[in-house]
Amino acid sequence: MMKETKLFQLVSRENKHEDSIVLVNGPHGPIKIGQGYCTIIAGPCAVESWEDYLEVALFLKQSGAHILRGGLFKPRTSPYSFRGLGKEGLEIMAEARRITGMPVISEIMDLRDLDSLYQQVDILQVGSRNMQNYVLLEQLGKIDKPIFLKRGLSATIEEWLLAAEYIVSGGNSQVILCERGIRTFENATRNTLDISAIAALKGMTHLPVIIDPSHATGIARLVAPMALAAVAAGADGLIIEVHNDPPRALCDGPQSLTPKAFEELAGAIEAIRPYAHNYGTPR
Amino acid sequence: MMKETKLFQLVSRENKHEDSIVLVNGPHGPIKIGQGYCTIIAGPCAVESWEDYLEVALFLKQSGAHILRGGLFKPRTSPYSFRGLGKEGLEIMAEARRITGMPVISEIMDLRDLDSLYQQVDILQVGSRNMQNYVLLEQLGKIDKPIFLKRGLSATIEEWLLAAEYIVSGGNSQVILCERGIRTFENATRNTLDISAIAALKGMTHLPVIIDPSHATGIARLVAPMALAAVAAGADGLIIEVHNDPPRALCDGPQSLTPKAFEELAGAIEAIRPYAHNYGTPR
Amino acid sequence: MMKETKLFQLVSRENKHEDSIVLVNGPHGPIKIGQGYCTIIAGPCAVESWEDYLEVALFLKQSGAHILRGGLFKPRTSPYSFRGLGKEGLEIMAEARRITGMPVISEIMDLRDLDSLYQQVDILQVGSRNMQNYVLLEQLGKIDKPIFLKRGLSATIEEWLLAAEYIVSGGNSQVILCERGIRTFENATRNTLDISAIAALKGMTHLPVIIDPSHATGIARLVAPMALAAVAAGADGLIIEVHNDPPRALCDGPQSLTPKAFEELAGAIEAIRPYAHNYGTPR
Amino acid sequence: MMKETKLFQLVSRENKHEDSIVLVNGPHGPIKIGQGYCTIIAGPCAVESWEDYLEVALFLKQSGAHILRGGLFKPRTSPYSFRGLGKEGLEIMAEARRITGMPVISEIMDLRDLDSLYQQVDILQVGSRNMQNYVLLEQLGKIDKPIFLKRGLSATIEEWLLAAEYIVSGGNSQVILCERGIRTFENATRNTLDISAIAALKGMTHLPVIIDPSHATGIARLVAPMALAAVAAGADGLIIEVHNDPPRALCDGPQSLTPKAFEELAGAIEAIRPYAHNYGTPR
Repeated sequence: MMKETKLFQLVSRENKHEDSIVLVNGPHGPIKIGQGYCTIIAGPCAVESWEDYLEVALFLKQSGAHILRGGLFKPRTSPYSFRGLGKEGLEIMAEARRITGMPVISEIMDLRDLDSLYQQVDILQVGSRNMQNYVLLEQLGKIDKPIFLKRGLSATIEEWLLAAEYIVSGGNSQVILCERGIRTFENATRNTLDISAIAALKGMTHLPVIIDPSHATGIARLVAPMALAAVAAGADGLIIEVHNDPPRALCDGPQSLTPKAFEELAGAIEAIRPYAHNYGTPR
Repeated sequence: MMKETKLFQLVSRENKHEDSIVLVNGPHGPIKIGQGYCTIIAGPCAVESWEDYLEVALFLKQSGAHILRGGLFKPRTSPYSFRGLGKEGLEIMAEARRITGMPVISEIMDLRDLDSLYQQVDILQVGSRNMQNYVLLEQLGKIDKPIFLKRGLSATIEEWLLAAEYIVSGGNSQVILCERGIRTFENATRNTLDISAIAALKGMTHLPVIIDPSHATGIARLVAPMALAAVAAGADGLIIEVHNDPPRALCDGPQSLTPKAFEELAGAIEAIRPYAHNYGTPR
Repeated sequence: MMKETKLFQLVSRENKHEDSIVLVNGPHGPIKIGQGYCTIIAGPCAVESWEDYLEVALFLKQSGAHILRGGLFKPRTSPYSFRGLGKEGLEIMAEARRITGMPVISEIMDLRDLDSLYQQVDILQVGSRNMQNYVLLEQLGKIDKPIFLKRGLSATIEEWLLAAEYIVSGGNSQVILCERGIRTFENATRNTLDISAIAALKGMTHLPVIIDPSHATGIARLVAPMALAAVAAGADGLIIEVHNDPPRALCDGPQSLTPKAFEELAGAIEAIRPYAHNYGTPR
Repeated sequence: MMKETKLFQLVSRENKHEDSIVLVNGPHGPIKIGQGYCTIIAGPCAVESWEDYLEVALFLKQSGAHILRGGLFKPRTSPYSFRGLGKEGLEIMAEARRITGMPVISEIMDLRDLDSLYQQVDILQVGSRNMQNYVLLEQLGKIDKPIFLKRGLSATIEEWLLAAEYIVSGGNSQVILCERGIRTFENATRNTLDISAIAALKGMTHLPVIIDPSHATGIARLVAPMALAAVAAGADGLIIEVHNDPPRALCDGPQSLTPKAFEELAGAIEAIRPYAHNYGTPR
């Protein structure tokens, strides 16, 4: 008779000693995430228009980003908020992918969109609100695309790894973990970015860990210091919101960097990387 | 240009002054939830077998419960835990409904189960982990069944009402709110049951509010005092886990009442009701 | 070699099976707290003037309160807020005590005030911010007055009982525990009143448990439902803020009841008491 | 009539644009904290014996620490835990100060110890549990020693700055803020180190900010990555627990670094510093 067990197995460090590397198959060949590579994902919160997205994508390509982000189907707290361009946005994103040669990542909310997203997107993101949407996790365990699993707003690290276990036990071992801030009592920042999760996870799992300083803080001024902190602590990469005109953004403008601020940050990240914790010592 | 707005509208008390009553269409006619009725939902965490479920169902009918609960598709933190009997359990539940004449409630996790659940279940539950599964909420907004919307583990009251707004704005106004404990630092109880949410909600919305003391505390000994507290504070009802042999339960045994303990509690609830806050003063 | 141990001993239910009763020596003889007595402590947040305090005190005496509260030395988050009348207020409080015959409670922040407070106050309160002020706790362990120990804003129940252990192990067993809300992410209420702490504590300790719905919610409209919930769950009493003119209060006006609202609440409490959890079954 | 105000004034960045530098008067002249200096405070949780303390102190002097820490009067959750050597420890600390020439920091809990600590200690620490012990803060506002103000376990940044305002408004502007982890639901680490507080504070106040990765994480393995993260984010320094034999430590052994691990960390800190956020741009 089965009783509840809480232990994650396949994703545990005990099960696999060396760091996993996830391969993202972009148009110009694979890009690696994990094991000391510091992969930069950047782009606006949402794909908003052809002009804006292509402009920012071309800029990001030159400025040090490796992967393009952009929301198509946006989970929004209110049913009355802007919820993304949907399939029209997917065409824009595909064009940006073609022009820049960069792989793209976008969130999947609805399994009915799986086919079209699978065709045109290189990494499928599971948002915080869906970290324990087990129906979604199980389906994503059956495909052969990297999955970007954001931590739930108040998920423990154990629960997060168990969510990853759902995907990996289904057959898809290409899982990337993304810490994006947890809910606490502090309200000077939108959430509290749990930088200590990086090293805690490195002891518990072999999966790569990416940090999202934009959603975590909700404040553009805090993105650069938190990005540097994440790299110093040994993160495998960052996901950063960049908009070519933040005040005009349809979502998350206050936390978006300008292209110029992103370019400076990318340089600062490159400079600090060799001094990061455990740099050059893959486990 | 649309900007984010956080305000709930249709579910707000300002939009509708009087308390809403949700009608549950059981085999013996409608059962009311809201406006001072104190509706008791009871049953085991999961439907486990024909014998167990029918036995407990018949007992609950005599002991003061109005609606039967029972999990068929169970969201579990670990992929290796017991996840419910699924469609086989649905047959058992339908038989219990027929024999007892009581309406039944069960959780929907996967939209592919919507048709069969819609046919045989009287209230569809959205679990805590899916409170912000907007794809699910939108589909449930298109049907004509009562929806039992559990509060997310760390959802604010505002976010919870916005989730309800997703359903109501889709066309289904039959929404019941269920507080089931929030995540805090305290670990003497599994979660912290937010009893103050009852009166806070009564000022903000016209929807009925049910309390789940079983999941909130995780400890059978705390269920009765918290159930009485909820009734005293003005809750519209309770949902309580009862198992005919808690130590043998496949899930949530430690928080399940025995049938005898439930019967005593039902009597105590009946006795305290006339002294509850705002008793007999429908707004 | 001593290692850290976290276990409370003297205050534990294992150490003393029966509920403790704390005797408060008012001018008209002892008042009991614990073991099923439902003791009502009421009064304004701060003693503000002779007229106001004596007026509200006389009213409370007739309306069902057993003990008078009133802040003299107020801990305030900002150094620029009103911090109480101090020793002048103590004279006012002593006069109210004489006129009404009710015992009085006030907070001690500074050990240099211990002598004068000891002379004129019947219960000494330790505020939430000082729950782990061990120097203060140790001194209060050496006197023979009841101590009213408020739970720290984010203290676990275990830490709270260990704070009580500091006092009791010093020689003073007259400790009353007061739950006043814990800090969570929810902001519809000032704090989240942890009603489940009542029954949790009853299993862990023999000390009496009082609930403070005024500070916990911060909203006058929520005080009555939460007071009734606390009584229903088996609390040994309540502490409630009452001001004869809340909008004019120098502190905590928004959460203060008017005298009339208090009188109604006292009646409702009296009515609900016989139906409370474990009523009439002292352990 | 005074109403509550929450705004800090003297400590705000608006009141003083440039970063403050606190001068610590050690035996070999002043040591600076603030404005880009990265000051390292190190030592054991508690002063335990002459041999141990002098040995670790001499080692730390050679390994890059600037200031020596060591608990004398220890606040402990349980009254039965080791609470420090008290005044005997003060003699040991004074000797270590003399031999190494390094300034020393220790916690003040009891105002009756103020004179002796003032004579022999260069920085007075206010612990987390006492962050809102206003009697203590007011007295420390009247002396001319640097005060090291640890953030309360669940204090907001605003409340923390208001606690600093108590000291500064009393006349002592030499306040150093120390983030040491906040209480959240996550239990993989003892507390959650709020690295984002560094940059948030830099926008709000001119006071220096020190990070304590040892108490925050409770796990020695996490101290180095979090120390590097703090430096990268722009912290003005670190306080790190080091014990010459952690398994033998009377308190906090599991989070203490060995001397060798500290030495490596000090080197890594030195290397990463020039790449920190806002390095070399004093405001």
